Amino acid sequence: MKDLAYYNGKISSISEMMVPFNDRSHFFGDGIYDATVSRNGIIFKLTDHLERFFSSMALVGINPDFTITELEQLLKTLVGKLDEADYFIYFQVSRGTAPRDHSYSPDIIPNLSIYMSPWPIDTDKDVRLKVMTAQDKRFEFCHIKTLNLLPNVIASQEATLKGLDEVVFHRDQRVTECAHSNVSILVNGVFQTAPLDNWILPGIARKYLLLASEALGFGTSETPFTVDEMLLADEVIISSSASICMVVSEIDGKAVGGKDPERLRQLQDAVYEDFYKETDSL
Amino acid sequence: MKDLAYYNGKISSISEMMVPFNDRSHFFGDGIYDATVSRNGIIFKLTDHLERFFSSMALVGINPDFTITELEQLLKTLVGKLDEADYFIYFQVSRGTAPRDHSYSPDIIPNLSIYMSPWPIDTDKDVRLKVMTAQDKRFEFCHIKTLNLLPNVIASQEATLKGLDEVVFHRDQRVTECAHSNVSILVNGVFQTAPLDNWILPGIARKYLLLASEALGFGTSETPFTVDEMLLADEVIISSSASICMVVSEIDGKAVGGKDPERLRQLQDAVYEDFYKETDSL
Repeated sequence: MKDLAYYNGKISSISEMMVPFNDRSHFFGDGIYDATVSRNGIIFKLTDHLERFFSSMALVGINPDFTITELEQLLKTLVGKLDEADYFIYFQVSRGTAPRDHSYSPDIIPNLSIYMSPWPIDTDKDVRLKVMTAQDKRFEFCHIKTLNLLPNVIASQEATLKGLDEVVFHRDQRVTECAHSNVSILVNGVFQTAPLDNWILPGIARKYLLLASEALGFGTSETPFTVDEMLLADEVIISSSASICMVVSEIDGKAVGGKDPERLRQLQDAVYEDFYKETDSL
Repeated sequence: MKDLAYYNGKISSISEMMVPFNDRSHFFGDGIYDATVSRNGIIFKLTDHLERFFSSMALVGINPDFTITELEQLLKTLVGKLDEADYFIYFQVSRGTAPRDHSYSPDIIPNLSIYMSPWPIDTDKDVRLKVMTAQDKRFEFCHIKTLNLLPNVIASQEATLKGLDEVVFHRDQRVTECAHSNVSILVNGVFQTAPLDNWILPGIARKYLLLASEALGFGTSETPFTVDEMLLADEVIISSSASICMVVSEIDGKAVGGKDPERLRQLQDAVYEDFYKETDSL
């Protein structure tokens, strides 16, 4: 198959799949998701993503009727149905299907949605992103990977219409994260990224950038930084599971970064080597 | 028909209706809605709800491919298909159907969902609600009636599990609104309710309570009040289009209100008379 959608046991192409009107995702965004990429039929950092997925479910009180091992097996089986190429691997649960009501029965059974679509993963180390900043007006549940993404949609569209690649959110001066990635900086040899609280997602690419920085002997710091500190940083890095270590060269029209290309390249080399090693054909 | 769902021109019972997997409501909660009730085939305050619906669309940049008059006609036609009774009337647009991506094509065509289900409207003036308070951790788009309702769902479920009827949200001490209604107080003959900003929905029941208060010669005040002020108020009132003027007797286990039953009854009489008058058979 070229692409694939799964919904509660049904499998079809993505464009053909239908879901019930009363799926609570349709009315409330009442669900959570996770996403990563695959190469050569191998799903990258799958254990991390599954663990975060189950953690997200627990944080919003969704009780899955499947185990982490069952979901892992299902995802691996579904990847096996795809043509061999790079894929975006997306999985989601909504709380379930019921007549619309904010409250729900404790016995409600979650709906599992999965899709896999071709995704040419970009590991070009010379790409430079142009981004904008925006006030972070999102809720206090940003540590959970929920389907309540309208503020992220609105910000992303504003960036796209301006020909930009991402939006860096900030609460007053404090940088939180981007519309669909984390943001970190290199300053004086230290890899600095916002601490894990309810304003940012515990990014898995972020976690491995921290580990790679330690292994390379860089300092690391999980402390808040401001917009001004980001503008003056030696390098600005945007990371997500689908774009592991992207470099920012322009923020709100001002040139940024470019002042520590050696450490930046070492970091990119480390995380991309990890990606290619983990996803090499067995 | 006993109940009815509509999706982009298709009509069926609610439980049979299906929507595309790639409807952006499914992944992002990328849409808005409105809701009211009908009696004798007459949709209550329909013009107000249609105007707010179109305003919500504009605020999130959804461009409808239908006019307000066309939607009004459609809703009236659909109500005509129902058995004669009281109904909950719900209408929603999502931004459209497209492969999942935060950004979207400017040409995307919205999806219109409607459902109508039996709803015995409660105008019993002697009902007393028990509610709880909770920190308002929602986003800064609460003035828009969006599908990003997970915090409202979580709060409502907590109340339901405690045997309570609603949740009053507050930002620090300042009361904003409830999980699915507005909250107002009567104090020294003044009907006081939070001002319209991005922390509360411009409730239509709230608007008519303000107008009724003025017509009755009460003072009115659209200024913030605190949790403590609410606990000490003469009366505490919760309002929504489906529960027009409900009275609160207990908040977090403490008795509240009951100190201005005359004005309270005048207000209930006024808004329920308006409801019955507008929805009497033609």
